[in-house]
Amino acid sequence: MLPITATFLDEISHDIPHQNWGKKEWDSDFAYMKQMGIDTVVLIRSGYKRWLTYPSEVLIKEEGAYRPPLDLVALFLSLSEKYGMHFYFGLYDSGKYWWEQGDYQKEVDVNLKVIDEVWAKYGNASAFKGWYLSQEVSRKTGDIMSLYARLGKHCKAVSNNLPTLISPYIDGKKAILSNQSTLTKAEHITIEQHEKDWNEILDRIQGAVDILAFQDGHVDYHELADYFAINKKLATQYNMQCWTNAESFDRDMPIKFLPIKWEKLLLKLEAAKQAGLEKAITFEFSHFISPQSAYPQAHHLFNRYMEKLKK
Amino acid sequence: MLPITATFLDEISHDIPHQNWGKKEWDSDFAYMKQMGIDTVVLIRSGYKRWLTYPSEVLIKEEGAYRPPLDLVALFLSLSEKYGMHFYFGLYDSGKYWWEQGDYQKEVDVNLKVIDEVWAKYGNASAFKGWYLSQEVSRKTGDIMSLYARLGKHCKAVSNNLPTLISPYIDGKKAILSNQSTLTKAEHITIEQHEKDWNEILDRIQGAVDILAFQDGHVDYHELADYFAINKKLATQYNMQCWTNAESFDRDMPIKFLPIKWEKLLLKLEAAKQAGLEKAITFEFSHFISPQSAYPQAHHLFNRYMEKLKK
Amino acid sequence: MLPITATFLDEISHDIPHQNWGKKEWDSDFAYMKQMGIDTVVLIRSGYKRWLTYPSEVLIKEEGAYRPPLDLVALFLSLSEKYGMHFYFGLYDSGKYWWEQGDYQKEVDVNLKVIDEVWAKYGNASAFKGWYLSQEVSRKTGDIMSLYARLGKHCKAVSNNLPTLISPYIDGKKAILSNQSTLTKAEHITIEQHEKDWNEILDRIQGAVDILAFQDGHVDYHELADYFAINKKLATQYNMQCWTNAESFDRDMPIKFLPIKWEKLLLKLEAAKQAGLEKAITFEFSHFISPQSAYPQAHHLFNRYMEKLKK
Repeated sequence: MLPITATFLDEISHDIPHQNWGKKEWDSDFAYMKQMGIDTVVLIRSGYKRWLTYPSEVLIKEEGAYRPPLDLVALFLSLSEKYGMHFYFGLYDSGKYWWEQGDYQKEVDVNLKVIDEVWAKYGNASAFKGWYLSQEVSRKTGDIMSLYARLGKHCKAVSNNLPTLISPYIDGKKAILSNQSTLTKAEHITIEQHEKDWNEILDRIQGAVDILAFQDGHVDYHELADYFAINKKLATQYNMQCWTNAESFDRDMPIKFLPIKWEKLLLKLEAAKQAGLEKAITFEFSHFISPQSAYPQAHHLFNRYMEKLKK
Repeated sequence: MLPITATFLDEISHDIPHQNWGKKEWDSDFAYMKQMGIDTVVLIRSGYKRWLTYPSEVLIKEEGAYRPPLDLVALFLSLSEKYGMHFYFGLYDSGKYWWEQGDYQKEVDVNLKVIDEVWAKYGNASAFKGWYLSQEVSRKTGDIMSLYARLGKHCKAVSNNLPTLISPYIDGKKAILSNQSTLTKAEHITIEQHEKDWNEILDRIQGAVDILAFQDGHVDYHELADYFAINKKLATQYNMQCWTNAESFDRDMPIKFLPIKWEKLLLKLEAAKQAGLEKAITFEFSHFISPQSAYPQAHHLFNRYMEKLKK
Repeated sequence: MLPITATFLDEISHDIPHQNWGKKEWDSDFAYMKQMGIDTVVLIRSGYKRWLTYPSEVLIKEEGAYRPPLDLVALFLSLSEKYGMHFYFGLYDSGKYWWEQGDYQKEVDVNLKVIDEVWAKYGNASAFKGWYLSQEVSRKTGDIMSLYARLGKHCKAVSNNLPTLISPYIDGKKAILSNQSTLTKAEHITIEQHEKDWNEILDRIQGAVDILAFQDGHVDYHELADYFAINKKLATQYNMQCWTNAESFDRDMPIKFLPIKWEKLLLKLEAAKQAGLEKAITFEFSHFISPQSAYPQAHHLFNRYMEKLKK
């Protein structure tokens, strides 16, 4: 299997209930990540609607965001340094400008200021090693291509060309909103259309995005090999790295979401290995794999993974 | 922040899965409550449909209720005495007369008998300090004003004027039934209409209800200050205490429900402090804050809360 | 109460998230089962869609099933021997032929091969004591009668007449799919229609099915006595044993599913005792009753059950 060597940090969470950890728990979680072989942590988003991971004067002023009780960006950077990991900073997701209002320009404008603010505030931290463009799409939604291109370029410009990452999803039969009760949908993309769309998108964002990490949970397990092959081919064509975002939660169950069944995760990591993908990042370690997760299924998933890794 | 000094006891539960505790676990839970500073426990309802917290001959005979294996009212009263807490008794909720059938008269009639039965059975317990009118509404639903007035007056009449509590909710954008999968709704109340409604309701129930404790989870966090101010103003005008019902579960997540994110609870308690509310009761300690909750997120929430309290 | 002396093993699970146990955890779970008095374990299904509990060459070849990382049938058989339990093998559920396509013939055909394969592979294990026909229905759906008759007869023919078990559900008001968010439905069966249907079904499958274990969770608690009486009468009439499938998860809560409230399980087991049912099997021990379940509510349910058992 392709080993998991990166994880998202799901703060601010969009749909996964919070574990209410403090500094001590985050420190021990990074120690568990290290033990598993994780060398890269990616903050999924620095803010979502009015919730923030760091006291952003930009977002407090312009978006009416709440001042957070703890600066998680500073904490994660210091833990990344302590444990020798690379930290990627995830941009702000308004949860409205590009979602409801279709106003991608406004989403770009506020993020340009966030990028400047964050680089000024934390750019000198030695663990700051990249950027995550947190707007996740599956198709050419709205002006997403322009958003990726402009934000990616600005991230790279301010930071001496640190790498930028996106993690789109495939519009497969399991592409369901987490607050819908169903598990699958009838209308979904064909592999041909997927290739056509992403050929066009990658062409437009080449140079602004360095790493393409498709989420692996929206198509059926036996369909993954074909999608992985297309993604790898396209990434190579546009000079990007091709990672897999190996989801460690289970999309097939009515509780949305608990840790994935080990056999499913293994199947996906084997397929990723087979397709020659370069790195596996998981969404995400702390809820779904960590030995200290609130979900005990995660503790056993960690053990199953470690048994396999050591074989 | 306004400290949490009261909690509901969610027995019989309407939509929160049961923890299957026995006497020993309840005893240690009361010890944890005490440690957190809780001085008041409010039984959310003594019965719901056919489920009972105590062996009510009235409800077994008239409603076909099941005889419970354990008398929780007796247990909670004895633990309240042991730990020096005030116990409020929650009335019976038929789950049908006032819900489906709109027959508020029947809901009142059965509860008048319950009040008499309970006071005869447990009224001499020194911890019995108040009543909770368990029918929860957000607007002038049906004959709710008359129900509150008649039940509240009867509670006070039999018990030498012990205080009565209600805990309505605001018909905000997050007023969604727990068995609906969505998280928000488009049609919701304006603050002007909320004030108008409750001005009329409180006018009608003055003298029958002593404490008004609105649930704090149905409007957005930044809207709370305005609603708290209105609620406080109205309560003062009608000679009621104004508490906040600080919900400790998270309404923004697809799993309905797990413990709330600490930052959200803190924001709400800060706003309640700011508005001069008199006391915070939470729904509820045992699932969502207790160090022995089945949800480990609650254990960390307890620690975060205690850290803040001791600052 | 009628004691629980059998449990399903929910591998492959249809809608209950996986606990990610390895051999060690399964061994200790069987020890807990033994402690509770369980003498029979029933594999709910040996395969579901492409997921398998054992490396079935038939299903890998014909259904494109995934080769499993662990042979659970071999493991469960060896643990059954170790702990002196009877093991029943659950047939394959395609999740499509009889569901979507209404092609019962194909469901039968593939299962005839599975039966032969399994008996050849594991039939000499001393713990192999019966069969479970895993297609669960509530009415005369499609050609279910013919499916039960043909599969049951073949199971018995290859195995020197080992007993066969089915576990239908009552089409009651709580017969809701787990991926629907609601809890009840308006249209449901009458007890008269239930009796009429099952009289016809049992008449057709007599001789092929030995044990009838209706699921007990789809009607209201006070309706159970009447349904149990009908089921017992019909089973006796057609020379079948009548067990109850005592569901140990809670169907009345928005989280689908967590462990049932002890009082509810007790009520159901008391009613089963009253009706003279012969044995109680639960769905299922490992998630909802086990002291090592990922759901701590289960640990307390185990304690409550054991307290009652020892009285």
